[in-house]
Amino acid sequence: MTLPSKVRQVVLAARPAGKVAASDFRLETVDAPALGEGEIMTRTLWLSVDPYMRLSLGEGGQALGSLMNGGTVSEVVASSNPAFKVGDIVEGRTGWRDYAVSNGQGMTRVDPSLGPITTALGVLGMPGLTAHTGMVPVGKVKAEDTVVVSSAGGAVGSIAGQIGKAVGARVVGIAGGAKKCAEVEALGFDACVDYQAADFAAKLKAACPNGVDLYFDNVGAAVSQVVFQQLNLEARVSVCGFIGWSDLSDAAPGPNQLPALYKTIVMKRLRITGFTGANKAADAMQQLAGWVKDGKIAHPERVYEGLDQAPQAFADMLGGRAGTGKVVIRVGPA
Amino acid sequence: MTLPSKVRQVVLAARPAGKVAASDFRLETVDAPALGEGEIMTRTLWLSVDPYMRLSLGEGGQALGSLMNGGTVSEVVASSNPAFKVGDIVEGRTGWRDYAVSNGQGMTRVDPSLGPITTALGVLGMPGLTAHTGMVPVGKVKAEDTVVVSSAGGAVGSIAGQIGKAVGARVVGIAGGAKKCAEVEALGFDACVDYQAADFAAKLKAACPNGVDLYFDNVGAAVSQVVFQQLNLEARVSVCGFIGWSDLSDAAPGPNQLPALYKTIVMKRLRITGFTGANKAADAMQQLAGWVKDGKIAHPERVYEGLDQAPQAFADMLGGRAGTGKVVIRVGPA
Repeated sequence: MTLPSKVRQVVLAARPAGKVAASDFRLETVDAPALGEGEIMTRTLWLSVDPYMRLSLGEGGQALGSLMNGGTVSEVVASSNPAFKVGDIVEGRTGWRDYAVSNGQGMTRVDPSLGPITTALGVLGMPGLTAHTGMVPVGKVKAEDTVVVSSAGGAVGSIAGQIGKAVGARVVGIAGGAKKCAEVEALGFDACVDYQAADFAAKLKAACPNGVDLYFDNVGAAVSQVVFQQLNLEARVSVCGFIGWSDLSDAAPGPNQLPALYKTIVMKRLRITGFTGANKAADAMQQLAGWVKDGKIAHPERVYEGLDQAPQAFADMLGGRAGTGKVVIRVGPA
Repeated sequence: MTLPSKVRQVVLAARPAGKVAASDFRLETVDAPALGEGEIMTRTLWLSVDPYMRLSLGEGGQALGSLMNGGTVSEVVASSNPAFKVGDIVEGRTGWRDYAVSNGQGMTRVDPSLGPITTALGVLGMPGLTAHTGMVPVGKVKAEDTVVVSSAGGAVGSIAGQIGKAVGARVVGIAGGAKKCAEVEALGFDACVDYQAADFAAKLKAACPNGVDLYFDNVGAAVSQVVFQQLNLEARVSVCGFIGWSDLSDAAPGPNQLPALYKTIVMKRLRITGFTGANKAADAMQQLAGWVKDGKIAHPERVYEGLDQAPQAFADMLGGRAGTGKVVIRVGPA
């Protein structure tokens, strides 16, 4: 193909004031970089938006005007790197743009025979492996457990809960709104409780008659404070997110809830483990792929069309308005 | 011996307003109970005061006017229970009184050949086993670790730190005041940092040039917030106490530090484990007794004389004024 002379990209235009809005970003067109020795040019096919990307938007984070970071599935359109050939489908972190030039570091080839290539951004990518990490090696989920998953409609939570079901546990999701809760239950969760409902705490308690043994926490904040009240003695908490607090500055004013948490950790003999990133061990991927193949893990997607929709998709995903499952943006023609 | 007709006991006279004071308790004399079928009468020889006893003094805790709870080493002075004979030395929780009648449940015989019988309240009792639990099965201490121990002068912390040294780790204590820090260092800690000093955070950092791998936390509160800043990636935190917050009501006003803690848990991939009580497994006791016998664990005691001094001993211990090591009260003539 003819290589492009221009690249379209989305940059950070303003630091979000609280909630992220599409207007915090700007689409711009820049000259395409030249392909250097040992480099590849990729055309972005699919772009992923994920909650962690919120973290770098505050003060001290990425510069205003800089390219938005993010995971992609791309096609190699030019290569002077012997490790890649034109036509390869690769997963990497090339950001919110339609073409990128890189030395190929951190790129991994996607095997299209495993399923739709978007699964490399979802159930067979970072979100799925994050869910697996928190449930299996960290959370040690077992059939006798009652598991609660916050952000159960999200790309990570929806997989985490289904992993719990795959091993035979009782799994209760937490999500925002009756519609999303119904979608989560349709994935096989035993129940899904709406945190926006006035009787959230009572409903959660009713959904967990034997208490909670494992809490997979994507959210933190007020939702987690309610869940902590239902934790059993020696319960485990796998924490991979705190997006519920991301719109707050550190040590935001309010009652200091740290003493209460600390007392709960001791009195309930909790084991709280934080983790970031995902266990990329081959056996984790194999187990996940097996569950997907056996139909035990569904992986719904919400597709936004076009790079210019990335800001809206990101804001919708963070605001819980993008539906259940993985949010991806179709950038290329594939 | 002639059994007593009266028993002296210490009761809770007032709920502590913030710090515990000796005046929150009252010594009184009551009629001695009769010895029923299957029961034993014990004469209290030694009484233990421990931080956890603070927890039951607040609203909703033990009733005003009720006997103070607490661990004791006693001598059986009368028995109609075939499991115990007169002259047995037993450890139990008979409370702040000079004689007690019980059915013997929860009492264990003390072997005086293992060492002074007060060790059943200290290094070879609940505090020592608590230290062992937090360091060995929970904290998984190893020679490569830098360990920080809060309340390092206390009955639990002083043992915890010496367990760290026994396995070859670098151990840094935290205690209040230069005198106590010197006493802690005399126990073999590599360093002890004074949390009352203005440059506490800088001193702690300097004492841990490779960061902190394991934090044995007896305290919570502001001390822990400073330690958390020095934790390494994937550090472990063993939490068995939050006495630093015990004088506060839950959710005391102040900046809400929970978001910052939660973010730290995730970003540093911490493993925080709460525990109460102690692992009474025989192998734990054996390991501890071996270290004591080999001189690897010293166990200083501060002795208060007489049951009437129990309130002062308790207040001093909580206020950090009782010196380094285990605080015991000599009640009986032994």
